[in-house]
Amino acid sequence: MKKIYFFLTILMLSGLNTYASQVDTIQVHSAAMNKTYKAAIVLPESYAKSKKEFPVLYLLHGGYGHFDDWLRKTPDPMLVKNLADQYNVIIVMPEGEIFSYYIDSPVDPNSKFETYTVKEVIPFIDSKYRTVKDKEGRLITGLSMGGYGALYLSTRHPDQFAAAGAMSGALDPNMTTWNLSPERFKGLTTFLEKTFGPMTPDNYLPYSVVNMADQIRRNGLPLVLDVGVEDFLLEPNRELHRRLVYNHTPHDYTERPGGHTWEFWQAALPSQLMFFSKVLKANNTAVQ
Amino acid sequence: MKKIYFFLTILMLSGLNTYASQVDTIQVHSAAMNKTYKAAIVLPESYAKSKKEFPVLYLLHGGYGHFDDWLRKTPDPMLVKNLADQYNVIIVMPEGEIFSYYIDSPVDPNSKFETYTVKEVIPFIDSKYRTVKDKEGRLITGLSMGGYGALYLSTRHPDQFAAAGAMSGALDPNMTTWNLSPERFKGLTTFLEKTFGPMTPDNYLPYSVVNMADQIRRNGLPLVLDVGVEDFLLEPNRELHRRLVYNHTPHDYTERPGGHTWEFWQAALPSQLMFFSKVLKANNTAVQ
Amino acid sequence: MKKIYFFLTILMLSGLNTYASQVDTIQVHSAAMNKTYKAAIVLPESYAKSKKEFPVLYLLHGGYGHFDDWLRKTPDPMLVKNLADQYNVIIVMPEGEIFSYYIDSPVDPNSKFETYTVKEVIPFIDSKYRTVKDKEGRLITGLSMGGYGALYLSTRHPDQFAAAGAMSGALDPNMTTWNLSPERFKGLTTFLEKTFGPMTPDNYLPYSVVNMADQIRRNGLPLVLDVGVEDFLLEPNRELHRRLVYNHTPHDYTERPGGHTWEFWQAALPSQLMFFSKVLKANNTAVQ
Amino acid sequence: MKKIYFFLTILMLSGLNTYASQVDTIQVHSAAMNKTYKAAIVLPESYAKSKKEFPVLYLLHGGYGHFDDWLRKTPDPMLVKNLADQYNVIIVMPEGEIFSYYIDSPVDPNSKFETYTVKEVIPFIDSKYRTVKDKEGRLITGLSMGGYGALYLSTRHPDQFAAAGAMSGALDPNMTTWNLSPERFKGLTTFLEKTFGPMTPDNYLPYSVVNMADQIRRNGLPLVLDVGVEDFLLEPNRELHRRLVYNHTPHDYTERPGGHTWEFWQAALPSQLMFFSKVLKANNTAVQ
Repeated sequence: MKKIYFFLTILMLSGLNTYASQVDTIQVHSAAMNKTYKAAIVLPESYAKSKKEFPVLYLLHGGYGHFDDWLRKTPDPMLVKNLADQYNVIIVMPEGEIFSYYIDSPVDPNSKFETYTVKEVIPFIDSKYRTVKDKEGRLITGLSMGGYGALYLSTRHPDQFAAAGAMSGALDPNMTTWNLSPERFKGLTTFLEKTFGPMTPDNYLPYSVVNMADQIRRNGLPLVLDVGVEDFLLEPNRELHRRLVYNHTPHDYTERPGGHTWEFWQAALPSQLMFFSKVLKANNTAVQ
Repeated sequence: MKKIYFFLTILMLSGLNTYASQVDTIQVHSAAMNKTYKAAIVLPESYAKSKKEFPVLYLLHGGYGHFDDWLRKTPDPMLVKNLADQYNVIIVMPEGEIFSYYIDSPVDPNSKFETYTVKEVIPFIDSKYRTVKDKEGRLITGLSMGGYGALYLSTRHPDQFAAAGAMSGALDPNMTTWNLSPERFKGLTTFLEKTFGPMTPDNYLPYSVVNMADQIRRNGLPLVLDVGVEDFLLEPNRELHRRLVYNHTPHDYTERPGGHTWEFWQAALPSQLMFFSKVLKANNTAVQ
Repeated sequence: MKKIYFFLTILMLSGLNTYASQVDTIQVHSAAMNKTYKAAIVLPESYAKSKKEFPVLYLLHGGYGHFDDWLRKTPDPMLVKNLADQYNVIIVMPEGEIFSYYIDSPVDPNSKFETYTVKEVIPFIDSKYRTVKDKEGRLITGLSMGGYGALYLSTRHPDQFAAAGAMSGALDPNMTTWNLSPERFKGLTTFLEKTFGPMTPDNYLPYSVVNMADQIRRNGLPLVLDVGVEDFLLEPNRELHRRLVYNHTPHDYTERPGGHTWEFWQAALPSQLMFFSKVLKANNTAVQ
Repeated sequence: MKKIYFFLTILMLSGLNTYASQVDTIQVHSAAMNKTYKAAIVLPESYAKSKKEFPVLYLLHGGYGHFDDWLRKTPDPMLVKNLADQYNVIIVMPEGEIFSYYIDSPVDPNSKFETYTVKEVIPFIDSKYRTVKDKEGRLITGLSMGGYGALYLSTRHPDQFAAAGAMSGALDPNMTTWNLSPERFKGLTTFLEKTFGPMTPDNYLPYSVVNMADQIRRNGLPLVLDVGVEDFLLEPNRELHRRLVYNHTPHDYTERPGGHTWEFWQAALPSQLMFFSKVLKANNTAVQ
């Protein structure tokens, strides 16, 4: 991280004059992958007016996607920005590539997104922005593959996060738990195998977040899960919920109408922010 | 409803000078029961400054309780008032007596709280306050017995409500579905039998909201359910959720940490308000 | 039922000389439908050697099927005959047509299989064979549509049966609860609509056995349910099981490996016979 | 195992003259524990008339119990003997002490019942009786703690057993998953801690059979589980079933009426024998 990173700034996605939150698109280098990826950062309106350190929410995108999905694809284009303003949090959307699963791939040495996200993006953000620089003010969630990433990373790095969430989380790379047509199944298999190797139990079991329920209990991180009852990933989400109930791990679990869609994620994100804001208040890291 | 009772006894429960929402304790007569009961009304800060018609949330108390529980028992004494302010809704807390279940009792002619709530309280509120006077701006929820009441009344009077909720809802008077110690079971039985008659299936089945899942589907009201995984009423809540999933009724269902406590209800109510505010926006009855 | 149809066409399906149970194919007239249908009857080996009255198991076939499926399609062609011998029961396999659902169709006046099975087949069998002539020795089960039939008929005519079962029961004509590909869904819809009318909730809800859980509880018949975890009808079977657990109705419920196949039904039927034999012993109608 | 063991024979528990199966009470020494325990063996009637090698079912007793429970406590005193006759299997009932859980205790060096059962009892039985001497003809099941033992031992020694079962299995030493009154909870804790050490997750998690679902899948042993819907151990049984469905492990799972009682186990054992007999037939180790 010795090299110099410059801001590309500043993409105002809204034409409203009254709108004041700031969206930066920056570049964050990965020494581990020897490559530079973009990230988007939303600073709340209050950031510029304040000298306080702000909590940061890492908001991960899903499969087939990229860092700016959350800014471009929600039905309400102001969703992320309004939530940053409402809760006075910085929202960082890093790159996870189309199927990295935010892991250090056991088969592709060029795909090290666990290292990138935790060891490279987070320190970079903390060095460039006025953030709460420890776990007490750092949150992580995401949709689908990003929900997986949020739980996988927070479970393996509990010293880094105050709370974690998943929306329609692809919590188990074992695709036999997904309710898919044979065509979609086949298409996704190709992508997943690039990251995890051949889809055998020996390969995917070590990466299943569903199987990490006891580690999640040990960590004791506040947890919030949202999934749609028509989602093809409903079963792995229910399974994690049941295991967390079974082993008495406190968590919020919501089933809502809807499927694997941006309408669903737009409905879920505000609810997750409400959850996270309570964690920040309890940690005394909320900006009032 | 011939006589009019109206008190303005403005009970400021908070000493904060900066606080501006108004809490009225009024009296609402019941012609059906030939008796007068108190109710509490929280008007949002914006009410006095505006000429708009405001949506109304009916917020019902639980068993052993009374109309002012929601103002007196939440750990944060400002909870209801802050939510009224935040979402610009009038919140009405009517009396439901300690075990009326908000039904017209088949065995006690002096207990007619279905009639009272729907035919007497609602018209009275609409006549005395600047409200949205039809279902598009009227919401109902409650805790425990009040959650039962909210679902029972909205299911039987779908023309009166835009949406309904329940927190730790006592959704099924069939106490064999409750996870209670024998002592508590016995104590509660005495109370329930005063309202429903002897606790036989013939007596309680017609009143089970769990058994109304197909009517709920037909009505199509937006629905939000919250229950704690340690609640003795978890099973009936899960059962209604499963039946609504089974018959494809859209609804939000959340399991959270906690039991049958005010801590839980304080955590659940803001989430239900967030849900209701989306309904109001969709109905164009929200006050911005 | 004035005329008598009786064939002794003894179809020995096995070439084993040592095998002695008898299979009759008879004709049973329906006055209600003004039509005559075949039925198969397996008499246990002990029947000819005895003067006792024998209990009778009505064993119903599934959709797309006919009365002799259970004799022709099991991987072990001796299955039904061996079970008749082992448990000393007469096994009657009546006709249910390819999609009658064993109901009196509300839309097709020529399809009255509830009347036929209960009012015409049973009395005919009791008049022609040495049977236990009341409910204490009469059992009913079936596969898929036949499992539906067994539960539907026994629930509506609890005075006629000592116990009932279903294997892979098509317990709910609401096809949205079936896990089918769009193609199969469409094909089946055409058939079901001939029996139930257009697939609207108003048409199918009154016929859902899942919705009859409280009537099943009231009847108190011993009940045995088997379903495969890969069956497209798994969900309605689980739902009925859950509702029977919820309302405290004693029943045996088994999930086994397998799907909607004859291998599964061959595995399930002996287990159901073991269950039924206990009922007969308790009723003193078993032939030792 | 060099020493000489002599038969103590022969406790005829029934006075029926026509009864011919043989019950031996033998002593099986444990070198590991330096102690000798009794075991009961039921030889089917066919054993004496035959020169064939017979399959063996190991049938384990529960907590607070001893080796002869299955012969003394079933409502029908002939249950085990009749099943041995009906299915032509030797049934061995070894000692498991009142709370050994059939494990090698990590805290009590004198309690080594995993070693005893697998390394000492099985070879002894195979050396003294005309048995199928490999896994193809060896089965194991039990009730409560014995159901735990059957699954724990077969999961850790899949080379030793053809199939395994559990009836009301105490599958998880994590007592927070048991539905017990505080008094019974306390009493049982004392016993469990002698075997597992203090009831902390670090101590009990490695011994939870529920957590071994992926190892069970890998082993691929046929599996049969029975539990009563009123059993205080229902939840861990459901949880294992769900995990085995989730990871696609074939198994039979039955919920029946009843609780943690001998009536239930008497109803479940014949069903488990029917299951095991199919395994033996498939393995060509059944005696016809």
